[in-house]
Amino acid sequence: MTAGKASVQPVILSGGSGTRLWPLSREDRPKQFLALTGDRTMLQLTAARVLGKAGFEAPLIVANARHRVEIERQMAEIGAEGVALVLEPAARNTAPAIAIASLRVDPDAILLIMPSDHLIANVDRFLSAVASALPAVQEGYLATFGITPGTAETGYGYLCRGEAISPATYRVGRFVEKPDAQAARDYVASGDYSWNAGIFLFRARDYLSALALYAPDVLNACRNAVDHGSTDGVCFMPELTAFSGSPSISIDYAVMERAERVAVVPVDIGWSDIGSWDALYEFIERNDEAAKSHNLSLDARGCLIRSDGPVVAAVGVDNLIIVATRDAVLVIPRGESQRVKEVVEELKRLERGTLL
Amino acid sequence: MTAGKASVQPVILSGGSGTRLWPLSREDRPKQFLALTGDRTMLQLTAARVLGKAGFEAPLIVANARHRVEIERQMAEIGAEGVALVLEPAARNTAPAIAIASLRVDPDAILLIMPSDHLIANVDRFLSAVASALPAVQEGYLATFGITPGTAETGYGYLCRGEAISPATYRVGRFVEKPDAQAARDYVASGDYSWNAGIFLFRARDYLSALALYAPDVLNACRNAVDHGSTDGVCFMPELTAFSGSPSISIDYAVMERAERVAVVPVDIGWSDIGSWDALYEFIERNDEAAKSHNLSLDARGCLIRSDGPVVAAVGVDNLIIVATRDAVLVIPRGESQRVKEVVEELKRLERGTLL
Repeated sequence: MTAGKASVQPVILSGGSGTRLWPLSREDRPKQFLALTGDRTMLQLTAARVLGKAGFEAPLIVANARHRVEIERQMAEIGAEGVALVLEPAARNTAPAIAIASLRVDPDAILLIMPSDHLIANVDRFLSAVASALPAVQEGYLATFGITPGTAETGYGYLCRGEAISPATYRVGRFVEKPDAQAARDYVASGDYSWNAGIFLFRARDYLSALALYAPDVLNACRNAVDHGSTDGVCFMPELTAFSGSPSISIDYAVMERAERVAVVPVDIGWSDIGSWDALYEFIERNDEAAKSHNLSLDARGCLIRSDGPVVAAVGVDNLIIVATRDAVLVIPRGESQRVKEVVEELKRLERGTLL
Repeated sequence: MTAGKASVQPVILSGGSGTRLWPLSREDRPKQFLALTGDRTMLQLTAARVLGKAGFEAPLIVANARHRVEIERQMAEIGAEGVALVLEPAARNTAPAIAIASLRVDPDAILLIMPSDHLIANVDRFLSAVASALPAVQEGYLATFGITPGTAETGYGYLCRGEAISPATYRVGRFVEKPDAQAARDYVASGDYSWNAGIFLFRARDYLSALALYAPDVLNACRNAVDHGSTDGVCFMPELTAFSGSPSISIDYAVMERAERVAVVPVDIGWSDIGSWDALYEFIERNDEAAKSHNLSLDARGCLIRSDGPVVAAVGVDNLIIVATRDAVLVIPRGESQRVKEVVEELKRLERGTLL
């Protein structure tokens, strides 16, 4: 994007947890902290998209307070020491997280909201899309970047473009939560639908105004939490009781699906939220990414092998996902990685909490 | 066996090393120290075959001096504290190892030589065979227990029975080193051949006499090593320089294939030397052994899964061998486990010595 008066404040949301990439991802080590495609973690890749780029401020990271040390370590590794953190004392989903960030910056600041655990293969195209959305945002639109769907996924929300605001920006016609398979196929075929990927661009003041209208209890709780929050160096901690009083609600439900002036910028940027080991395999195949190798494969074909330490010797096997850590190993055929949740459920049932 | 005047002195040979069961077996942790079929290690199972049984002395273990602590720990676990050890200061194969043991006991002692890394499913039948060999041994025969071959293996030596000495004991007709496939099939079909499994019964004096005739340099070196050896509690250490001067040679080459009075007792005792992961799978299938489980398999069929720590979640996979340690994981189809040696060679080439 061109450097100009309107500089963009990236806000990286690192509040997520999850075990869909078990055994590498754990409750205390969600996938944003993993290096899945090379030497850099997903959080590092997310920050690096904007770090030092013309027109962007240093990112602000909103994260679980427990992850402070890990985030500071990862930012130092990419030369982003001293990045500002908002440390959430509780998990309240994205609407409150973004509210805190919005209340901590200049009301006219333009916020680029980015989940910390998505991959974007074509960063230049992504940054161009951000630039192209600025005019609409300057007019008060809440913009979302809609991913051109590659397949008829039923696990994502879709949004339909309406009338054009500018060549690359449209009003959002409607939001559709996870559709059935037939609807998903229709959406993809129509060319009018995008996946809702949770990447947003708006002025802080416009988000806060929308919150005041559609989710005033979120706004009030967060304003209270900021007013009574505390600061430790570059870290800001919203006050626990007030923040915990906010409803736990996503920005989509709280604001985007209700607000009047919502825009979509369709983008084809090689995006993936790496929601499963199969998704990682596909991302790597599609984008020809190098993988950090801890393996000694001999005649292994079509395998995804990941390890955070143990060397993996895969010999003469095909189409397997093999993931190794020091305390757990997963072996599962490609195409079945959604079954990881069965393993996680079984570990819970067996009270093997240290493995989760 | 019946308790009688002739009590048998078990000698367990624990000098072996090897990485055919990599990554569980390592140069410093050969397979006799692994628990592959349950809670007990192969060494513990070997000792337990005779421990406290009528007619048997407490076993004597001949081992690599580096393994002293591990052996003492494993013996204590099965209530065999204070078992006598011969600690070899160098590896010189089986003829010298057995010579040292023979020189340390009463010349009339009857030695039962047992490798520490074989499995025997039918221990009662094995003990009966030992009892049945005693009369021939009392007449000066060197007896070997010949395994009834299950398949036409080309990796073992075979021996052919000659004339009967007693109902269950025969003179050995001839020894055949690892035959070709056709010869192996012929041997199995004939019913006259057994595998040479390295389990022997003889009087110490008869072994030493045979050594004096056929391998005097082994005997002289070992006698010297014993004369100048040292004692530490229950441990005896042959003197290094003398012992190192012995040829490194197996009992088969040095004595059994040359001596006049050699007997074979054919046995069908569910024997396996577990020379590969596939061999372990087959042993477990054949003998319906329970396996120490560290796994969380869901819909895994025909798999052999072993771990010395990490939990292994194998989901929806068939006929795989999966072996996990904290620093290495092997995944290989069943039937291909001889390729483990390729992995070991590759690790050597990459100078990943800590993994060997």
